[in-house]
Amino acid sequence: MSTRKPTLAVVGATGAVGTVMLGILSQRENVWGEIRLIASARSAGKLLTVRGEQVAVQAISPEAFDGVDIAMFDVPDEISAEWAPIAVERGAIVVDNSGAFRMDPDVPLVVPEVNPDAARNRPRGIISNPNCTTLTMIVALGELHRKWRLTELVVASYQAASGAGQPGIDRLHDELEVVANDRSLGNVAGDVRRALAEKLGEGESPFPAPLALNVVPWAGSAKGEGWSSEELKVRNESRKILGIADLKVSATCVRVPVVTTHSLAVHATFAEEITVAEARQALVEAPSVVVVDDPDGKEFPTPADTVGADPTFVGRLRQALDFPNTLDLFVTGDNLRKGAALNTAQIAELIARDL
Amino acid sequence: MSTRKPTLAVVGATGAVGTVMLGILSQRENVWGEIRLIASARSAGKLLTVRGEQVAVQAISPEAFDGVDIAMFDVPDEISAEWAPIAVERGAIVVDNSGAFRMDPDVPLVVPEVNPDAARNRPRGIISNPNCTTLTMIVALGELHRKWRLTELVVASYQAASGAGQPGIDRLHDELEVVANDRSLGNVAGDVRRALAEKLGEGESPFPAPLALNVVPWAGSAKGEGWSSEELKVRNESRKILGIADLKVSATCVRVPVVTTHSLAVHATFAEEITVAEARQALVEAPSVVVVDDPDGKEFPTPADTVGADPTFVGRLRQALDFPNTLDLFVTGDNLRKGAALNTAQIAELIARDL
Repeated sequence: MSTRKPTLAVVGATGAVGTVMLGILSQRENVWGEIRLIASARSAGKLLTVRGEQVAVQAISPEAFDGVDIAMFDVPDEISAEWAPIAVERGAIVVDNSGAFRMDPDVPLVVPEVNPDAARNRPRGIISNPNCTTLTMIVALGELHRKWRLTELVVASYQAASGAGQPGIDRLHDELEVVANDRSLGNVAGDVRRALAEKLGEGESPFPAPLALNVVPWAGSAKGEGWSSEELKVRNESRKILGIADLKVSATCVRVPVVTTHSLAVHATFAEEITVAEARQALVEAPSVVVVDDPDGKEFPTPADTVGADPTFVGRLRQALDFPNTLDLFVTGDNLRKGAALNTAQIAELIARDL
Repeated sequence: MSTRKPTLAVVGATGAVGTVMLGILSQRENVWGEIRLIASARSAGKLLTVRGEQVAVQAISPEAFDGVDIAMFDVPDEISAEWAPIAVERGAIVVDNSGAFRMDPDVPLVVPEVNPDAARNRPRGIISNPNCTTLTMIVALGELHRKWRLTELVVASYQAASGAGQPGIDRLHDELEVVANDRSLGNVAGDVRRALAEKLGEGESPFPAPLALNVVPWAGSAKGEGWSSEELKVRNESRKILGIADLKVSATCVRVPVVTTHSLAVHATFAEEITVAEARQALVEAPSVVVVDDPDGKEFPTPADTVGADPTFVGRLRQALDFPNTLDLFVTGDNLRKGAALNTAQIAELIARDL
């Protein structure tokens, strides 16, 4: 291990996740030498603040990765697919938050609390960061799996607008401004659609239906047989991270009018007998998990109480009444932090220790 | 069967469900003679419109039920518990939308599309209308059960504010006005709570947490072992309506910032082999069910497209990838119409035919 502090590149520094990343890098232990900010050419020269200092954004180019030890990518799949291998060629280890490499058998999919050792075996020089929906539940489930062996998962999500980036956040706020000024809205089919079309124009939304005063049972792209990409990610990524090739998973992914923080209703079945008391104790002791579970005292996880925080919040712990070895629970996690930037930063710190 | 048209009483005519009921009675076939409107003493004398005519509300009293053939109750549990037997004594058959009698073995729990014959056996003279969350899915599930025999249900709900009546609707709109004017909200834990407390005051909400920019994983009252009354209703009422004493059910009930229309993510397992194509065909042919299922064309059920309509909307039909004989689907239904007033009106019409 050298005494030189490693150089970190943040690729996609100007996006919704990138913005949160700069805040996280400013708050966590300062393990980095240079932090280089990289984005598309149109953001080049923009000054962003990280660790209290202003840093100019560099346009992405092969040379921009010279001297970089670890490069974190928070960009669309196709940008990662093109540029991650270039960064690796230039000598960087890439931690990628896109979907481009997650299911590549030569790319580990890492959650430091769950499978840190997987980060050491990276034949392509790339480590993938899981999808935000998977990350919302996987630390808590990893802890329970370690003790009781997870076999089945039925999951329904309540996903935030910021999962669609800054355009998603902006659209939700735009829609809320329209609907909040008309108390007649929400009572007749199509009235919210018409109000939004009139005030905001048609076809400008990153969502396939109104999000204000609505829920939208679709996230991602169509993957055949009725499944969305988001739902298959929950299944396939959970299997890979937990190392359970035959884990049974059904997910239904739904967008809700929340700015940031995903929530999941989880129905989890285990091979071993599990009680609520034991599960609660294991989760209370787990790092990065906070149990909030006293409904009589109005204590349960909600997005409004979770956003901006690092841990996974777990509540509504119940023994399924009719299913053996099964717990029902409700989990929340900030999709821009643990669901994206924080887990990426944790992976980068994990591998920086071995440089 | 007499040729005299029966007299109907609407008890709770001034509430959120009562208001929808008057609209429904004005739209449906006019099978009623007198329609008498009954509410608490403080609403007595108020004029409401039904079937195009103004009718004065009468204060509830034993005499108010004299000459009534069928009395529909849309009032809190304790009011139904007290007054439904009085209405029966006065000669009325009661159709009750509260939770007071639903699990009474001498009171049938009726959904006309699913178990109409149950309405004929009513030893107490009372028929119960199911809970709105159960009603959101039960017509579609009843149809599938008839052909493939339902054995297991895992359900997560996305429940509208109007499930808490007019105070719920008003509170959601009040909260939306606060959050829609501040784009910084939703980014820090507690910021929505603080803004609402400052603008609306503490402790005024029918919900146990902020609903705007949030989801609240709690509906109803605590029933022990972590379960809410709403979740146990979904289990116990589904069993009773479908006539499956050992149906396995796990439900997680969550409130979302939608005015009206409940949505449910349903994971349903059957005894017989079932395919998506067969299920879709059965649902397309079912009365009161509309299939909306083309995600590529942005076609799926949402509350904003459902509210004000009578049918159950079903979409996102998928064969569970890892569970045999299991379908995942998403259903929406107007909780004030099919979830309350419409089903009540249907039951009343059903028994009126036999008077």
